Amino acid sequence: MTTTLIRQVRLNGQQQSRDLLIEQGRIGRIEPHITPPPGAHVVEGGHRLALPGFIDGHAHIDKSLWGMDWYVNEVPRELPAIIDNERRFRREQAFDSRRQSERIARQAIRLGTTHIRTHIDVDTEIGLRHMEGVLATRDALAEQIYIETVCFPQSGLLGRPGTRALMEEAIKLGADYVGGIDPSSFERNPVAHLDAVFELAAKYGKGVDLHLHEPGELGAFSVELMTERTRALGMQGKVTISHAFCLGEVDPGYQDRLIAGLAEADIAIATTAPANRQVPPYEKLRAAGVRVAAGNDGIRDTWSPYGNGDMLQRAMLMGLKYRWRQDRELAQALHAITRGGAEVMGLKDYGLEVGCRADLVLLAGQAVAEVIAEPPRERAVFKAGRLVADRGECLF
Amino acid sequence: MTTTLIRQVRLNGQQQSRDLLIEQGRIGRIEPHITPPPGAHVVEGGHRLALPGFIDGHAHIDKSLWGMDWYVNEVPRELPAIIDNERRFRREQAFDSRRQSERIARQAIRLGTTHIRTHIDVDTEIGLRHMEGVLATRDALAEQIYIETVCFPQSGLLGRPGTRALMEEAIKLGADYVGGIDPSSFERNPVAHLDAVFELAAKYGKGVDLHLHEPGELGAFSVELMTERTRALGMQGKVTISHAFCLGEVDPGYQDRLIAGLAEADIAIATTAPANRQVPPYEKLRAAGVRVAAGNDGIRDTWSPYGNGDMLQRAMLMGLKYRWRQDRELAQALHAITRGGAEVMGLKDYGLEVGCRADLVLLAGQAVAEVIAEPPRERAVFKAGRLVADRGECLF
Repeated sequence: MTTTLIRQVRLNGQQQSRDLLIEQGRIGRIEPHITPPPGAHVVEGGHRLALPGFIDGHAHIDKSLWGMDWYVNEVPRELPAIIDNERRFRREQAFDSRRQSERIARQAIRLGTTHIRTHIDVDTEIGLRHMEGVLATRDALAEQIYIETVCFPQSGLLGRPGTRALMEEAIKLGADYVGGIDPSSFERNPVAHLDAVFELAAKYGKGVDLHLHEPGELGAFSVELMTERTRALGMQGKVTISHAFCLGEVDPGYQDRLIAGLAEADIAIATTAPANRQVPPYEKLRAAGVRVAAGNDGIRDTWSPYGNGDMLQRAMLMGLKYRWRQDRELAQALHAITRGGAEVMGLKDYGLEVGCRADLVLLAGQAVAEVIAEPPRERAVFKAGRLVADRGECLF
Repeated sequence: MTTTLIRQVRLNGQQQSRDLLIEQGRIGRIEPHITPPPGAHVVEGGHRLALPGFIDGHAHIDKSLWGMDWYVNEVPRELPAIIDNERRFRREQAFDSRRQSERIARQAIRLGTTHIRTHIDVDTEIGLRHMEGVLATRDALAEQIYIETVCFPQSGLLGRPGTRALMEEAIKLGADYVGGIDPSSFERNPVAHLDAVFELAAKYGKGVDLHLHEPGELGAFSVELMTERTRALGMQGKVTISHAFCLGEVDPGYQDRLIAGLAEADIAIATTAPANRQVPPYEKLRAAGVRVAAGNDGIRDTWSPYGNGDMLQRAMLMGLKYRWRQDRELAQALHAITRGGAEVMGLKDYGLEVGCRADLVLLAGQAVAEVIAEPPRERAVFKAGRLVADRGECLF
C-alpha cells in the first residue's frame, strides 16, 4: 500500500493548513510540515478544506434511475399508489438493480461519499433481485465505498404472504439491518409489524432501521412501541428510526418525553430534512445524546425526480430546513453528513485524527459554511488513503 | 444588429426540435428547419432545451457579499437584530454596493437570469448610496439584463426621521416601485406604515412591493389592509406582496377569502419557497388568477449564507417545498421563474413565441423536470438575441 503525503490542507475548515501523512490506509501523522518519506506519493492540498468522507445514512441505491432515460413522473401522491406504481414499473421495464446501484454509488463517490447505508426492496415480485444486485455492487466497489445494507419490505411485511420468508433469506444473504415501514398507517397493524421486524432482527442478531412517515400522535405511538421493544430485547444502540417527522409535530412536552425515551434506549434518528414536512428537532435530539444521521433518500427514482447523490447538497437542504445561518449552526449540518452518520452506522476509526482510516474529501472553499451553502463540484476523494475520484471523475 | 439562427432546440422542453431565427433582437421565425439568411450568425442548438430567460422576481442585489471574503455569520435570529447587524457591518466595512450589485448580477446572468426585480435598502445611514450603486449597475448592464428597482425601507419608514424624504429622493432617482416591511410586527403601526407606502406610490404613480413576513392572522390583517388600499387608490395590477407566509398559515376558509381579495385587486405574490416557513398556496393562487413570481431573495449576505443566483435552483427548492414530483407539477416551477415573473413585472413581449424579445437560455437535458431537479451548470444565455453568457462565463 502506498504512502501518501497530502500537503497543506485545512482540516475541517481550520485556518491553519497541515500536512497529512497516510500510511497503510490510515492517517499516520498530522503536522504543520512533513518531509515526504522516500517513495511517498505527494498530493498538493493547496490550502483546500479537508473534510471526512461523507456518509449517506439513508439511501435507496437499489432503485435509482440515474443515467437512464428521463422518467416522466405521473405518479399519484398517496403512499400505496406510489409503491404500486413502482412495482408495475419494474415488471414492465426489467429494471437492473445491479447496474443502477453501481451507477448511483459511483455518482456518490465522485461527490465525496465514502459510506452509505442503503435500504433495499424485498418483495414477492422482485424477490431478492435487488438484494443480490446491491450486494454485488457492494463487493465490486468495496475498495471505493462502504455500503451497509437494510433489507426493506417496501410493499409491507404483513399483507403479502411469503415476504417474511424472503426477508429471512435477505438476512442470510448478508443484510446488515432489518427494515420496516409505517406500522399503523401503511401496515394497519403496528404490533404485528413491529413484532415481526424486531423478532427477525433479534433472531439473527441484526439491528433495525425502520421508515416512519406517520404523522403526529400516530407516529409518536410507533416511536413508543419501538422504544419499548428496543429495551425489552436489549437492542440498545442497534435501532434507527428513519424520517420520524412525527417528532417535529407533537407538542413540546410529549416531544421531550419521546426524546428521553430514544436517548435511554439509544435509538438513532436518520433525517433527510424534507422541505415539505416537519422534521425531528435536531438540536434537542443531539442535546439529549441521540445520534442523528442525514441521508439523501431516493435519488431520481419513480418516487421523486430530485437529488444528485451529493451529501453537501443534503447539508445545504438541512441548513435551509432548520434555518441554520450562523457558521457554527452550519457546522451541525457537516456533523450530520459525517460524524453523525458514523455514530449511527457504528463506524470505528472514522474522522480526521491520527489513527483514523484515511477517508476524506478535499475541496476549495474559505469555510465549511461556504461549501455547504454552495457545494463546489470539484472534489478529490480519498478512500482508505487511495484517491478514488477527482474533478468529478471516478478513478476506477 | 446581427441576425442569429439557433438550430434545433427544444422549446420549453418539447420533444421536436425547432430552428429559431432571431432578427432585430426578437424571435422572427420558429420552424422545423430554416435556411440561414446571408450573414446570419449560426448557433448549433444540438437539441438542447430552450427556456425563456429566467426572472428573479425578488432579489437584494444591493447587499450581496458575492466574491468577497467569506462572512462568518454570528448574527442572532431576530429581525431587528439582523437589520442592526447589517447597518453595523456597513459602517465598519465601507460596503461597495455598486461593485457588489454588478458581481451578483453577472453571476445571475451566467446562470440564465435575464430580468431581476431588486429591493434596494434606503435608510438614514447609507442614504441613497445603494440606490445609486444599483442604478449604475443597471445602466452598465442594460444590454445584458433588465433590472427593475424597489426602494426599500429595510430599517423601517416610521421610526427614523428622514427616511420618508429619502424614499422620495429614491423615487426621483428612478426607483420603479415603493417598498415596505412588516407593518405591524416590525413597524408597530400597520395603518401608518401602509398609508405612508401607498401615499408615496400614488403620489409618484409607482407600484408597491412590500415584504410581509408576519405570521398567521397578523400577516393576514396586513394583507387585508393592503387589499383595501389597492382598491381605494385604484392601484389594481401595481401591487406585489413578497413572502406572504401568512397565506399558508391561516385556516382554509379565511385563506380562500384572502385569495379572492387578492385576485379582485389584482395583487401579485412573490415567493422564495423557504423550507423553514409555511408558503403561499401556489396552486390555489394561480387557480384564482393571482400572478405569482419566484425570487432568490438575498444571496450570500449578512442575512444568509445561502444561494448562488440560480433561478433553476430556486425552482428546485420550490418543487421540494410544494412537494411537486410529477413532471406537470414541475412545469409550475418553471412557470414561476419565467412567465410568472414576467406577469408580475408586467413585461411585454416575453416568451418563446414569434415576436417576443429573444431572451432565452439553452441547456442540456432530456426534460424540463430534469434541469430543475439537477440544474446543469453549462448554459448559453441570450439577451435580446445576443449571446451574453456561455459555459459559465459572461461574454462582456
